[in-house]
Amino acid sequence: MVKACIFGATGYAGAVLTAIIARHKRVKLSALLTSSQEGELIENIYPTMKKDISVRLEGYDDYKAIEESDIVFTALPHGKSFSIVDKAIKLGKRVIDLSGDHRFKNALIYNKWYETEHINPNLLNAAVYGLPELYYEEIKNAKLLSNPGCYPTSAILGLAPLMKRKTIDISSIIIDAKSGVSGAGRSISFDSSFVQANENTKAYKISKHRHTPEIEEQLSYQCGSDVYVSFTPHLVPMSRGILSTIYVNAIDMIDINSLIEYYKDFYESASFVRVLDYGLLPQTRWVAGTNYCDIGIEYDIRTRRIIIVSAIDNLIKGAAGQAVQNMNIMMGFDQKEGLELNGIIP
Amino acid sequence: MVKACIFGATGYAGAVLTAIIARHKRVKLSALLTSSQEGELIENIYPTMKKDISVRLEGYDDYKAIEESDIVFTALPHGKSFSIVDKAIKLGKRVIDLSGDHRFKNALIYNKWYETEHINPNLLNAAVYGLPELYYEEIKNAKLLSNPGCYPTSAILGLAPLMKRKTIDISSIIIDAKSGVSGAGRSISFDSSFVQANENTKAYKISKHRHTPEIEEQLSYQCGSDVYVSFTPHLVPMSRGILSTIYVNAIDMIDINSLIEYYKDFYESASFVRVLDYGLLPQTRWVAGTNYCDIGIEYDIRTRRIIIVSAIDNLIKGAAGQAVQNMNIMMGFDQKEGLELNGIIP
Amino acid sequence: MVKACIFGATGYAGAVLTAIIARHKRVKLSALLTSSQEGELIENIYPTMKKDISVRLEGYDDYKAIEESDIVFTALPHGKSFSIVDKAIKLGKRVIDLSGDHRFKNALIYNKWYETEHINPNLLNAAVYGLPELYYEEIKNAKLLSNPGCYPTSAILGLAPLMKRKTIDISSIIIDAKSGVSGAGRSISFDSSFVQANENTKAYKISKHRHTPEIEEQLSYQCGSDVYVSFTPHLVPMSRGILSTIYVNAIDMIDINSLIEYYKDFYESASFVRVLDYGLLPQTRWVAGTNYCDIGIEYDIRTRRIIIVSAIDNLIKGAAGQAVQNMNIMMGFDQKEGLELNGIIP
Amino acid sequence: MVKACIFGATGYAGAVLTAIIARHKRVKLSALLTSSQEGELIENIYPTMKKDISVRLEGYDDYKAIEESDIVFTALPHGKSFSIVDKAIKLGKRVIDLSGDHRFKNALIYNKWYETEHINPNLLNAAVYGLPELYYEEIKNAKLLSNPGCYPTSAILGLAPLMKRKTIDISSIIIDAKSGVSGAGRSISFDSSFVQANENTKAYKISKHRHTPEIEEQLSYQCGSDVYVSFTPHLVPMSRGILSTIYVNAIDMIDINSLIEYYKDFYESASFVRVLDYGLLPQTRWVAGTNYCDIGIEYDIRTRRIIIVSAIDNLIKGAAGQAVQNMNIMMGFDQKEGLELNGIIP
Repeated sequence: MVKACIFGATGYAGAVLTAIIARHKRVKLSALLTSSQEGELIENIYPTMKKDISVRLEGYDDYKAIEESDIVFTALPHGKSFSIVDKAIKLGKRVIDLSGDHRFKNALIYNKWYETEHINPNLLNAAVYGLPELYYEEIKNAKLLSNPGCYPTSAILGLAPLMKRKTIDISSIIIDAKSGVSGAGRSISFDSSFVQANENTKAYKISKHRHTPEIEEQLSYQCGSDVYVSFTPHLVPMSRGILSTIYVNAIDMIDINSLIEYYKDFYESASFVRVLDYGLLPQTRWVAGTNYCDIGIEYDIRTRRIIIVSAIDNLIKGAAGQAVQNMNIMMGFDQKEGLELNGIIP
Repeated sequence: MVKACIFGATGYAGAVLTAIIARHKRVKLSALLTSSQEGELIENIYPTMKKDISVRLEGYDDYKAIEESDIVFTALPHGKSFSIVDKAIKLGKRVIDLSGDHRFKNALIYNKWYETEHINPNLLNAAVYGLPELYYEEIKNAKLLSNPGCYPTSAILGLAPLMKRKTIDISSIIIDAKSGVSGAGRSISFDSSFVQANENTKAYKISKHRHTPEIEEQLSYQCGSDVYVSFTPHLVPMSRGILSTIYVNAIDMIDINSLIEYYKDFYESASFVRVLDYGLLPQTRWVAGTNYCDIGIEYDIRTRRIIIVSAIDNLIKGAAGQAVQNMNIMMGFDQKEGLELNGIIP
Repeated sequence: MVKACIFGATGYAGAVLTAIIARHKRVKLSALLTSSQEGELIENIYPTMKKDISVRLEGYDDYKAIEESDIVFTALPHGKSFSIVDKAIKLGKRVIDLSGDHRFKNALIYNKWYETEHINPNLLNAAVYGLPELYYEEIKNAKLLSNPGCYPTSAILGLAPLMKRKTIDISSIIIDAKSGVSGAGRSISFDSSFVQANENTKAYKISKHRHTPEIEEQLSYQCGSDVYVSFTPHLVPMSRGILSTIYVNAIDMIDINSLIEYYKDFYESASFVRVLDYGLLPQTRWVAGTNYCDIGIEYDIRTRRIIIVSAIDNLIKGAAGQAVQNMNIMMGFDQKEGLELNGIIP
Repeated sequence: MVKACIFGATGYAGAVLTAIIARHKRVKLSALLTSSQEGELIENIYPTMKKDISVRLEGYDDYKAIEESDIVFTALPHGKSFSIVDKAIKLGKRVIDLSGDHRFKNALIYNKWYETEHINPNLLNAAVYGLPELYYEEIKNAKLLSNPGCYPTSAILGLAPLMKRKTIDISSIIIDAKSGVSGAGRSISFDSSFVQANENTKAYKISKHRHTPEIEEQLSYQCGSDVYVSFTPHLVPMSRGILSTIYVNAIDMIDINSLIEYYKDFYESASFVRVLDYGLLPQTRWVAGTNYCDIGIEYDIRTRRIIIVSAIDNLIKGAAGQAVQNMNIMMGFDQKEGLELNGIIP
């Protein structure tokens, strides 16, 4: 049994990660760590877990938990796990960081967009970006794995096949994403209160969201030249799910059926991507509670524009599920181990 | 491997049942049957299932599916499975009926409350009411198991320990239940449209709901004398979950801590009941996606009234999950087999 | 034009009050007062108001606003307006207090249930409880009007006709109330965050809610003897609205049609109560955005129990609308002035 | 008093229109007409209206209602009011058609996109497109006014100032719109059932929605050359509201503050458009229940893309409110008469 500890187990992503790993047949929870609720049982914070998971939260003053684990998950807000990651790497542990701290190769981009100085810039080069559909081989041997952001997961999976194809205008990419409120995390705020978020839709941080450079860096790698995108996140009144509607101009006329076939081929070996048949478009409800990313594609012949719609559960494929998928690959397990989750029906 | 077929697999309860059984390690789906969507793949009706479950729906003109199964689930509206159940019993198959057709010992009660004439009254006496917390031994050997209604499950589990205790005024029982909209099933109606149900709470069928006599019959068995209750169902704007708030007058003063201990003892061996500590009250979110029934108890010393709050997921413990729990007992499996479901977190 | 100022204009009740009064043809907003957002425009806090209402919020260090007003509204949390009310009364102003500070005749009940020492117990005796359907004459001449709580408004209006009738068992009253999340006010909390409140129903503060003694005191006045009730508030996932389901044992058999007629007679002159015809039950959606209280009545002949369902918009009839209705009566205006609000359709 | 009748008063747009006109000080409801609920009181279909509006619905076999009215509103599905409109025009009545039947100058576009043959193509040329912010003068004298679609209202108001400016790439326009479920109307469907629409976001009819050519025709008039747009409608889990996020490539660098000033100037005399200050983005909640269209503008300097966000209430500014605004202009009333609606606070 692999021993795994989770820093930040009480946040939404950390709790989902805890629940998945607690049922994983080849992994044992060695410790759940928290900065604020030391000594509490996780089941008292998430009563859903009662009778299933009963682990007492520990503070993280020393590094005992790291020493006693084979793999260390950090599910903390950005900027809060630099020393944990550094220590774990030095102790030879495998690390999966769910925060945005190790997603860029260049620390300056991080410093600018996250308005935080990067403490471990030397780790960035070796960090592997944990999108298994693109970096399967690299993930196998990753020491430090940087788990992708939720929006970037939906955007990059929707665009990656096209970027490889090079028949599109890469300056035309627009990503209009709609997210449920859990994306804002567990800490309370006026905007994420029920009365403010219910019966409401809004855009926020237009062209300023931290996931923008993450999407751009990964798309640039895929197509081999610099890509800039317009990324607009929206908040819609649901608890979970992200739907990204992506617009790209085609250089030449497209045959939509061929394009869908190409996407299906591209993701043929991907356990958790479902490219939908022509005419079918993703709904966030269909992926809720699962690690799937659903992708549907349309072509607007009048404007020569390709429209890709991708849907994920922001807390599963967009966070905890993807982290487990990455762990499975790193540990040589089947990718789907522990992730055979029934979705939320109906 | 036990072979199971499901009549009515496309309804909400049938689909949840399909999804649970598809992952059950000791059961194989032998057939999914439908009256209206013959030939369609279940995954096209519930796209959530894509890549996980791919079974083609069959019509049910002959009884081949029954013959080829060890256990037959009927998840049809009431009155629609009389001949199926009859045939399956005659063929010596075990049957789990999720409808209201076999829940009463007396066909006249059925005829009156369901406004339908019972075709198989002779089967009623042998039918076992499938609430495992009360009828575990009977369920083991049941040929025909009648799966309880969703409201009755939450009400009876909340009240059963008290009924045994006989220190309450049995004429005082009031059950005020709040249900999500999936309880109304998959067929469309004006009242269950989004715009009508959203931002709305209402009571309906006060003292007229079909689950009333079912609750009364079971409570009567528990306490040994006739019980009549006031049962008021409500519709609240959520997809799933039932919260029942139950009021009972205590004859003598009650010590709330002792009462909670008594409930905990009563349900000590129940895998899927969680009696909460004093001061904690159930929330439907905590049981969503699981087979648990959570119970919290308060005592209002000023009015000598016991208030019990119970919460279930109407489609799991209130329907499909309980059916699987019953099947597990009938087949000699561990009760929890296939039901180790992570709830919906957060 | 009557000049009105509002203390606590930025809270939810205060903002609704501001919006109603801003369109009132016989009243002028003389000042909006705040303890925390001095100098801000109300339209920047509630952008809904832009182009309609533009008033700069003032702090309340001195009593200038009171001096310059004819009527003073306090919409502050309990315990925060003692000195304001005292000063306004001393200056001879009419006062409408939306908090719970002046709802009891006996300060000891306040001290106990609100865990706060009452500073102005001498004002309690003269304070008029502002439920116009019961105290119309007293309200006309009230100097200090105490605006009822939201839950009590729905409960008392549902029960008042019965209390007068004296054919019920007054020890049997149970009020099971379901409220939208705006009832918790504008200050943020974990429990009122979207992800916690969405897809969730729960009971809270069973037999401990502060509105319990308020309901009891008013019902006692109606029937002439001490009344104790079981009151259970619930939170359901909607922004606004309260549905109270009320259970009362009838001493003798009841004719439901006569009872409904009696209710209709009782409320014949009430501008804002709608007693529904037999068979029709209230829905919170039907009163949302209006000052109406809808009442539906059922009789369960099997248990001799009367079930009354009442619905209000917690922020209108349960707070700001009722305050304006009271002001209209106090000022000699038509009760409906400024309250001819279209509900939210559909 | 102007006499107005409404065909299709029981649909969602028709009911909102009924409610607004019922309180309009210069208009009298002469008749409410229905094809299916003849003889019923409107208040029984919309119990919200009880005590406020009590009108008996009439069938529309003859044209008496038209003859007895000064203005005729048709709020029927497309294709259902050809003969009504024709008759009313022949009788010299003013007509406001809320359907899509008279929005195009060219009947062939209608025939193609609505898959219906136009019966009155001769009326199209004289029909005035009722967007008061663009066609105020034409509306004054309109005999047949075609009320804009909900999506087009939000899209065109967001884009019109830019189209006049001609510093944008008109081939780059993308409109990504999110709508509440009431946009689908009152007739029931599986997709608009609560359980399907709740906790779900999806795109639909990408590049195929009937509002696409309506947007294009109007934008073409504004800029003087043919415009083709990508329009993607989405369904989000709320009852009402549309948020359109609009992307346009700027030809030259833009100064965002100047652009916002330009928008403010453009809409200076528009009673119901609110251009928000820089940094503020619209939320559907802020316009819910009102006739306002809120517009916020951002500029993404990295991609030289202008992003405009516009929000309306689909049933008010997107349907009934706009129809009343048009009627006010046609009748020489103040544009805001009857439309001084308090929004939904909070």
